Amino acid sequence: MPFVRIQLPAGRDGAFKSAVGDAIHDAMYATISIPEDDRFQVISEHSPAEFIYDRGYLGVQRSDAAIFVQITMKRGRSREQKRALYSAIAENLAKRVGWRREDVMVVLSENDPIDWSFGNGEAQIAGEDSEW
Amino acid sequence: MPFVRIQLPAGRDGAFKSAVGDAIHDAMYATISIPEDDRFQVISEHSPAEFIYDRGYLGVQRSDAAIFVQITMKRGRSREQKRALYSAIAENLAKRVGWRREDVMVVLSENDPIDWSFGNGEAQIAGEDSEW
Amino acid sequence: MPFVRIQLPAGRDGAFKSAVGDAIHDAMYATISIPEDDRFQVISEHSPAEFIYDRGYLGVQRSDAAIFVQITMKRGRSREQKRALYSAIAENLAKRVGWRREDVMVVLSENDPIDWSFGNGEAQIAGEDSEW
Repeated sequence: MPFVRIQLPAGRDGAFKSAVGDAIHDAMYATISIPEDDRFQVISEHSPAEFIYDRGYLGVQRSDAAIFVQITMKRGRSREQKRALYSAIAENLAKRVGWRREDVMVVLSENDPIDWSFGNGEAQIAGEDSEW
Repeated sequence: MPFVRIQLPAGRDGAFKSAVGDAIHDAMYATISIPEDDRFQVISEHSPAEFIYDRGYLGVQRSDAAIFVQITMKRGRSREQKRALYSAIAENLAKRVGWRREDVMVVLSENDPIDWSFGNGEAQIAGEDSEW
Repeated sequence: MPFVRIQLPAGRDGAFKSAVGDAIHDAMYATISIPEDDRFQVISEHSPAEFIYDRGYLGVQRSDAAIFVQITMKRGRSREQKRALYSAIAENLAKRVGWRREDVMVVLSENDPIDWSFGNGEAQIAGEDSEW
């Protein structure tokens, strides 16, 4: 159910993008209790003029190769799950594709089970209230 | 007022994209009580390596040609309106451009009337509370 | 902390995009109490077939060169701050890059301090509750 948008600097090839997608998905699977096949990700590339961020905000030393990860998911993850998620995304990206941990930004937005249709024009998880 | 982001596999031409935009807008107009001229849509294309999703999650059989529709709108639509919206989007895309209903994913995010400016630096609908 | 997505018609060069990013960031800095170095912006370009909107909704006369600005930020800005933000964005874009004020659309989405990681896999602002 999470819907994940990933923004990267332009120039990475398809294999690299796939590895980035895998690293992020596996981090989510490990930390926020989603089924392994609950995966929807979109990656977009941006030129330097289109990808603008401060190199030192909050004391984090960012390079020219940041990655922004926006995750929309239904409400209910605990603060500890979210902390574990951030840690696992940065860890997986560092280990698997060599991304600097300082360069990984993550933003979460939450909605409700009724706010999702996974195909066929149906609201498949609308009946859920407290579990996923 | 809804702001609609549409992600497609790369390669469709402008006429096809326009038809996709029309299909989605007409579904919204028919189901969630928006004015006919309340339309703001952005389409982006993605290569296979940038467009990653499970082919069978929740028992829906997806093909290589999924479409993701993200809608931001102000709070207030009922559960039944949202169900009708999903159904109408899938139906319109199937009928008008031949998209498979299984391949249509929709995600909603909600905000408040004060969260919109439609031009001129003004918050045109900030005075609304319970109607649109 | 705000994460800003900017959609433009295709064809502007890098210097123009940078000026657009500056205009929007300075408007945010002036109106919604963010640190000057709290800046994360992504710009994407869209062809006419991908950038669809009504030219007259709510009586605003839009041209072919609209700009859509989506801002995700943590909850807490007042209605007056949001109004000031819209005004400042339109004003700065008009003065600095000659964008028509009618063509500037802004949409806000809010989340919580725990919903942000600014690098290193950490939730840097999770301890905040009522200030930023």
